[in-house]
Amino acid sequence: MHATPKTTGPASPGKLLYAQSGGVTAVINATAAAVIETCRKHKVTVYAARNGILGALREDLIDTTKETPAAIRGLAHTPGGAFGSCRVKLKSLEDDRARYERLIEVFRAHDIRWFLYNGGNDSADTALKLSRLGKAMGYDIRCIGVPKTVDNDLAVTDCCPGFGSVAKYTAVSLRECALDVMSMMDTSTKVFVMEVMGRHAGWIAASAGLAGEGSDDAPHIILFPELEFDPEKFLARVRETVDRVGCCVIAASEGIKYADGKFVADAHAGTDAFGHTQLGGVAPALAGMVRDKLKLKTHWAMPDYLQRSARHIASKTDLDQALAVGKAAVELALAGENAVMPVIARTSDSPYRWKIQTAKLDKIANREKKLPRAFVSKDGFHITAAARKYLSPLIRGEAPPPYDRSGLPEYVTLKNVAVKPKLPVLDV
Amino acid sequence: MHATPKTTGPASPGKLLYAQSGGVTAVINATAAAVIETCRKHKVTVYAARNGILGALREDLIDTTKETPAAIRGLAHTPGGAFGSCRVKLKSLEDDRARYERLIEVFRAHDIRWFLYNGGNDSADTALKLSRLGKAMGYDIRCIGVPKTVDNDLAVTDCCPGFGSVAKYTAVSLRECALDVMSMMDTSTKVFVMEVMGRHAGWIAASAGLAGEGSDDAPHIILFPELEFDPEKFLARVRETVDRVGCCVIAASEGIKYADGKFVADAHAGTDAFGHTQLGGVAPALAGMVRDKLKLKTHWAMPDYLQRSARHIASKTDLDQALAVGKAAVELALAGENAVMPVIARTSDSPYRWKIQTAKLDKIANREKKLPRAFVSKDGFHITAAARKYLSPLIRGEAPPPYDRSGLPEYVTLKNVAVKPKLPVLDV
Repeated sequence: MHATPKTTGPASPGKLLYAQSGGVTAVINATAAAVIETCRKHKVTVYAARNGILGALREDLIDTTKETPAAIRGLAHTPGGAFGSCRVKLKSLEDDRARYERLIEVFRAHDIRWFLYNGGNDSADTALKLSRLGKAMGYDIRCIGVPKTVDNDLAVTDCCPGFGSVAKYTAVSLRECALDVMSMMDTSTKVFVMEVMGRHAGWIAASAGLAGEGSDDAPHIILFPELEFDPEKFLARVRETVDRVGCCVIAASEGIKYADGKFVADAHAGTDAFGHTQLGGVAPALAGMVRDKLKLKTHWAMPDYLQRSARHIASKTDLDQALAVGKAAVELALAGENAVMPVIARTSDSPYRWKIQTAKLDKIANREKKLPRAFVSKDGFHITAAARKYLSPLIRGEAPPPYDRSGLPEYVTLKNVAVKPKLPVLDV
Repeated sequence: MHATPKTTGPASPGKLLYAQSGGVTAVINATAAAVIETCRKHKVTVYAARNGILGALREDLIDTTKETPAAIRGLAHTPGGAFGSCRVKLKSLEDDRARYERLIEVFRAHDIRWFLYNGGNDSADTALKLSRLGKAMGYDIRCIGVPKTVDNDLAVTDCCPGFGSVAKYTAVSLRECALDVMSMMDTSTKVFVMEVMGRHAGWIAASAGLAGEGSDDAPHIILFPELEFDPEKFLARVRETVDRVGCCVIAASEGIKYADGKFVADAHAGTDAFGHTQLGGVAPALAGMVRDKLKLKTHWAMPDYLQRSARHIASKTDLDQALAVGKAAVELALAGENAVMPVIARTSDSPYRWKIQTAKLDKIANREKKLPRAFVSKDGFHITAAARKYLSPLIRGEAPPPYDRSGLPEYVTLKNVAVKPKLPVLDV
């Protein structure tokens, strides 16, 4: 269907294509910066796919050689996804063969010899399939997964770049608003609910637990998506906490479910007096429940994207790891590795030490690492010492962005110059 | 009704009572730190009222001399209200005479000669009334208002301590999540709504405007409580923005109202399938509206207390001003001033310069400074150059708290040792 392009450019040493996938994080651009800087050291040209895998399918590629060293350095402190990301999951090789083949064609057209896919479980799966198809189609492409997800649910790696920063944001924000609530509890809000991301895994919810250490410290209740939500038990614990402490600060995962498997957020969505959709939300649902049943004044917060883009409060550990996986991914690629991902291995808890290891993509693709039950207290409402030991190093250290004279972070915007397409346009 | 206490303590030089009032801020404790440190220099004992004016009414006073210099220094970087605040407004002298008289009695019992009330319009009113009653009752009490409010709606002062930090939080957070939205808009969220505080005045909403400068920069739409919310005009602007930019990022004040005067947040509250109250919220209401009418994918955030307690991203300008009004309030008190408030006067926009002046409480009490119409663009959806000139200096400079080795800010908790009561218990 598509003719082999007439010009393929210099056959060697080829180019490296980098793409961002799925929900972005505070430090995914740091990984991108490390990828590009490491390639520049090795004199390898980096193209980036605009809007993730879609850019590769559409042959909408960005020539990163047009960016200044300062701009690439600046990426390391800029949140969001500088080249655009996307929520597109390719199906199996059988069901989506045309799109996989199109990718190989685009790679061939631009002499792309290395493909770095920066994402989570799904992206690992895509990279793995591409590496197999390349072989089958006789095109020598090295596919490397690069870990990224705020959810920390990636298998094999001890933790995932992106998570440490959202964990730090969550713990710091919860500590701050708990001070606010405690100041006012005598005459104002008694129960405060903060909703956090993590639809299937409670890692972010667990990180809220780092905000306090004593038994009366906030958060007083954490609700994990791995455990069934029992409204009676929850309300009893809220009542007891308010009686004992004077207030109750709650961190709730967006993904908590009732016994029947229904998401709490969805169960409470509805239609308002105007006939408009009432969007669900765990925090307002829980706050409404507390207000109705316990007659206590409530407030709630839903940081949503703020939590995963808060580069201003990024964890230095997380930033270091985001940079390290970017550098390692390039080195693995140039060393001829295929279908692997650089992952983080913890070698010591105290002092915290870690190193980069290489994992096979087939051990990571489509798996999901949930919060271990041993990280959750027996009563299901808090984290254990084991969880603290694991989580605490991940939020350590500060890595603030530079601020300009207007008081705002100096986040960079790239030029993102398009590479001239060589193939017929394809509607993907 | 209450006997004059037998012992009144040393008649001279007397003590100073400090109380925090209303919603707390990221820097109200900095003002407290400056008050205490300035008093220590002048060898004046500071008592603090626990939970604001309630502590004074209940004779529940805190002896700040029990706190170490390091703890007081630490207050300057600790959010929340370290002595507790409250939402209690005394009525007129006629309607609430018993409570005003009780306050004078408590002052007399503890030889309190200076009362510093750290709050907004209502607190200025209470301080003013107390100063008058003291005179009428023959008790020499000097009442000084100390400005504090995230809403920036205090009259006379050019700006109000607490506002600059929430403004910085808002502008930084909006810039960050806009980068997130722009990365993903090709296949994910097209419209993002961030709800901000400011029920009656649009100062915080306006500060979101600092996040971008170009016509395509986020926020693309700001909704102010001073202007009537017109759903048709709003939806048309969202549509047009998405068509032009690819996404639309909105900052909306919690206080926007329909033409009939009804709050948008309340209009969309209701009851869910469980019969539970569905708490209102402007952000989910607007997001639901966009989803229903424009069929666009939406996300929304509601930072709630996070915005006013985010000491980690405080403005240095705001911190400096919070410290300055605390110091000035003590100096005014010790100089014998009464029924006044130290306020911030801007002497130059560029370079930004300010100084402390003295304002009479009767010019501040119960007034409200709304966002001037000249600060809002003609179409009602953004801020003007005049607004930028005013707002920009207020978010300048960073003043991060120290962080401990666990990666969390080192916020202090005071001992808050109670002063032994001298009066009969009174149910207030």
